[in-house]
Amino acid sequence: MSSETGRKAIDLSNHLSELSKRRKVSPLKGLAKYMNNPNVIPLAGGMPHPDYFPFADVSANALASDSFTLEPKRESSSLSWVWKLFGAGKEKTSPINVPKYASDPVNEVNLAVALQYGTAQGIVPLQKFIKEFVTRVYQPAYSDFATLVHTGNTDGWARAVLTLCNPGEMYITEEWSYPSAMFASQPYNVRPTPIAMDAEGMRADDLYKTLDEWNEEERGAKRPHVMYTVPVGQNPSGATMGEKRKKEIYAICVKFDIIIVEDDPYYFLQEGPYKPKSERSTVSVKHDQSEFLSSLAPSYLKFDYQGRVIRMDTFSKYIAPGSRLGYFTCSPQMAERLERQGETSTQAPCGFGQSLITQLLTTWKYDGYVRWLHGLAVEYKARRDYFIDTLFEEFHVRQSYSTESIWAGCEVYDCYAKPTDTVEKTSYRKLFTFIPPTSGMFVWLSMDFESHPSFKEGEEETLEMQLFINLAEAGVLVAPGWYFAADEDMNDRGRGHFRISFSNAEFPTMKNAIKILGEVVKDFFKEH
Amino acid sequence: MSSETGRKAIDLSNHLSELSKRRKVSPLKGLAKYMNNPNVIPLAGGMPHPDYFPFADVSANALASDSFTLEPKRESSSLSWVWKLFGAGKEKTSPINVPKYASDPVNEVNLAVALQYGTAQGIVPLQKFIKEFVTRVYQPAYSDFATLVHTGNTDGWARAVLTLCNPGEMYITEEWSYPSAMFASQPYNVRPTPIAMDAEGMRADDLYKTLDEWNEEERGAKRPHVMYTVPVGQNPSGATMGEKRKKEIYAICVKFDIIIVEDDPYYFLQEGPYKPKSERSTVSVKHDQSEFLSSLAPSYLKFDYQGRVIRMDTFSKYIAPGSRLGYFTCSPQMAERLERQGETSTQAPCGFGQSLITQLLTTWKYDGYVRWLHGLAVEYKARRDYFIDTLFEEFHVRQSYSTESIWAGCEVYDCYAKPTDTVEKTSYRKLFTFIPPTSGMFVWLSMDFESHPSFKEGEEETLEMQLFINLAEAGVLVAPGWYFAADEDMNDRGRGHFRISFSNAEFPTMKNAIKILGEVVKDFFKEH
Repeated sequence: MSSETGRKAIDLSNHLSELSKRRKVSPLKGLAKYMNNPNVIPLAGGMPHPDYFPFADVSANALASDSFTLEPKRESSSLSWVWKLFGAGKEKTSPINVPKYASDPVNEVNLAVALQYGTAQGIVPLQKFIKEFVTRVYQPAYSDFATLVHTGNTDGWARAVLTLCNPGEMYITEEWSYPSAMFASQPYNVRPTPIAMDAEGMRADDLYKTLDEWNEEERGAKRPHVMYTVPVGQNPSGATMGEKRKKEIYAICVKFDIIIVEDDPYYFLQEGPYKPKSERSTVSVKHDQSEFLSSLAPSYLKFDYQGRVIRMDTFSKYIAPGSRLGYFTCSPQMAERLERQGETSTQAPCGFGQSLITQLLTTWKYDGYVRWLHGLAVEYKARRDYFIDTLFEEFHVRQSYSTESIWAGCEVYDCYAKPTDTVEKTSYRKLFTFIPPTSGMFVWLSMDFESHPSFKEGEEETLEMQLFINLAEAGVLVAPGWYFAADEDMNDRGRGHFRISFSNAEFPTMKNAIKILGEVVKDFFKEH
Repeated sequence: MSSETGRKAIDLSNHLSELSKRRKVSPLKGLAKYMNNPNVIPLAGGMPHPDYFPFADVSANALASDSFTLEPKRESSSLSWVWKLFGAGKEKTSPINVPKYASDPVNEVNLAVALQYGTAQGIVPLQKFIKEFVTRVYQPAYSDFATLVHTGNTDGWARAVLTLCNPGEMYITEEWSYPSAMFASQPYNVRPTPIAMDAEGMRADDLYKTLDEWNEEERGAKRPHVMYTVPVGQNPSGATMGEKRKKEIYAICVKFDIIIVEDDPYYFLQEGPYKPKSERSTVSVKHDQSEFLSSLAPSYLKFDYQGRVIRMDTFSKYIAPGSRLGYFTCSPQMAERLERQGETSTQAPCGFGQSLITQLLTTWKYDGYVRWLHGLAVEYKARRDYFIDTLFEEFHVRQSYSTESIWAGCEVYDCYAKPTDTVEKTSYRKLFTFIPPTSGMFVWLSMDFESHPSFKEGEEETLEMQLFINLAEAGVLVAPGWYFAADEDMNDRGRGHFRISFSNAEFPTMKNAIKILGEVVKDFFKEH
């Protein structure tokens, strides 16, 4: 099933939307042999002379790829990390420079090309880096896969919707899903069909059942042929899907002829299982590239022997969200349609971003970039651990086996107000439940509103918003669960949800926020 | 009619497409008071800590705003300009720097904000610069106009189409129009209705007639309520529309309730009328800001007392195409819908580009940027003059009054093969006609195919493509006219067209290209 077998992507043209089919092939395609031909003087395009670009060069001080150590972090080292931010430590940087002109303008990064009109494929050195990276890291199961830049996964999904879906169609997604993805498709009247989740994300059994029993009349739409999924550090639940489940889901998608749009922004933020502080290893970790990469849950690409996966990667989480740069990996057929769509909207991603990021990556090289990603994963692990540790400090936490909701059958943590609290009445009330995420940026709290004094069935969302407002008024902004519901009428069965991010706050701020969370939640569950 | 009257934009919600009406208002709108509130700890979003952005700072050597002199250019000075490119001259530059952190992170440009997730409105210092620039330069006729960044005018128009047009609708445009604009709307089955042009661009009389006599059944679409127009240095014809015509067209748009999407990428490349070399002034020009600005044809915004114009500006031609940065100026109602659309596609424009361009503009300041634009206009004037001068050298040119096609009633230049040519037979044959453009980057050649030996009515496009291929094979790539036709079945009445750009080539290359053009065209019109 590896690309060495020479397996090619299958024909998926039956999946193209009417809109996408109407989109013309590049009208200049026949003229390709005259374009970028050094023997032909180009007077066709409205390209300014690069001398009119008011930048003689662009440069940056780039962080070293090993800026973040792989040592197991203790709270103290986390604090020293905070101090570094305020100037106590000095970052290791090296200068990178993008000159205006290069002797090999196609293969060397330069402003004359990067800031000029270019194809929607982006600059050549970036294309090459991405292709090598995808080949080595994700190991697609067919040989003629294509990669194509976009301006971030939100743009990527918006393009995929228009390429694949006709108005009125539905697509498959997790029962809790990424709001911007749903907002992007909703104006076209392309709606999500939620699939039940468990601790690994989308459930294969519910996916099969949903597709197998699809009733077009009842649903008001034909059976979906597109899936939108965030398989690693799922947004909002934090769930991560392993190899076995991915293979099961892929097989179902083959059976029901579904295109999988794999939105995977948190792929390299795989933090691994949470261990309580006392059980954590303090043994130094050495960077071993293949060990690091093979520790990661594989991408759907690895099992995609047919070419039915459109994978979306982004530099948002590994370089910066403002990069507005990411890329598709998919069959050449899909890449061609997605590229045509880019030509009449964003065109190429910003040349400043493309050139600076490419210069960074080609300076670091493949090995350096993987080292950077490993360092980031360890940083996020420290953040995840610190956040969970602090929850353990703030609440009375008991481990149990859940029998309901998305964590049924799993070991979960139930959080109670600490018995030391003054109001003993509430102190044995279960407040919320969570599972420490193994990837990504988010902890998903499942609130036990059934134990709230004024709980009434069907009013979970009211309590959720009341508590959300209380938290915000007390100084902590979290994301309310209703915002992520793929089905607006989702029955929360006595529960409410909050997504809390541990990606950004300074450690003392995070501690302070959890303290406030503790106070507000405990107070909320009191009878007044 | 100035904004001082306090006139406000009218309600245009009847123009919103079904799709745009379905697009939700920002779901977090009600939570605005908690966001970016220094007293509230933000744990809602998935924002990486800026310490994880691998850039300590970004900097550039920026050209001085007066890098280009305002002196009338002679050929010799043009050549010295070419030499400068190859290192003989030294550019005046000054360093600009974007630090990672700023003491006032909202109002000072910094990477921690520019590279973070941000709103689709872009960074605040850029918003401020744009608002001031629009207010002072375009002087909109109502007070509550809004500006909003986008990722270039192609993205801008693509967003406008989805905001304003339902599938099956038509929009008004020039009979020759910008291909990417037409390709952007075509998959949605939103088609152009061509309006006849003259030397000023869209004709008011034909616009009135088209709308007044609109027959829904015959046209297969209801009367258009949207206009797409490039009023300055029109693409491809090079035509520029003055104040009087714009007022006439605006009045017609009020009568027929039409939204004007003013795509104006060449606005500051207004080169003024062409004068033959011998008649050109050699008097030095001093930069007078208000004189320069008032010499420019006004924007539709200046007469837009109702707020029915969506103006699109871009930095593509004044800074660099790879900026992928531009902005709308329009009513707050339209801006809100266009912003929502940006949120679920491109989000904010690239932060590297935003911050470097903003730092450049705020370093130059308003006055410096206007000086830069003036310098560019003079450069393009020199390019336009050089191109036309060279046509005069290569062909035998006679002035005449045209009686047909888009230049009817205008003084035009007819180009003949020079009588010195060896093949006398072709030497008195008219080959093509043109008008020197007063703005923009393009010369539009109207070929006299009627005088071609093998001309047959209805086969103009065949001849056009034959000549296009001959040119490309001989080493000059131009843009064939059919590519710009708003109506595919346009009757060219014995003519073919080529758009030739003078924006990019070095002067000796341009001369060489025109020499090849001369040879190929003359040969093409021979009887073989």
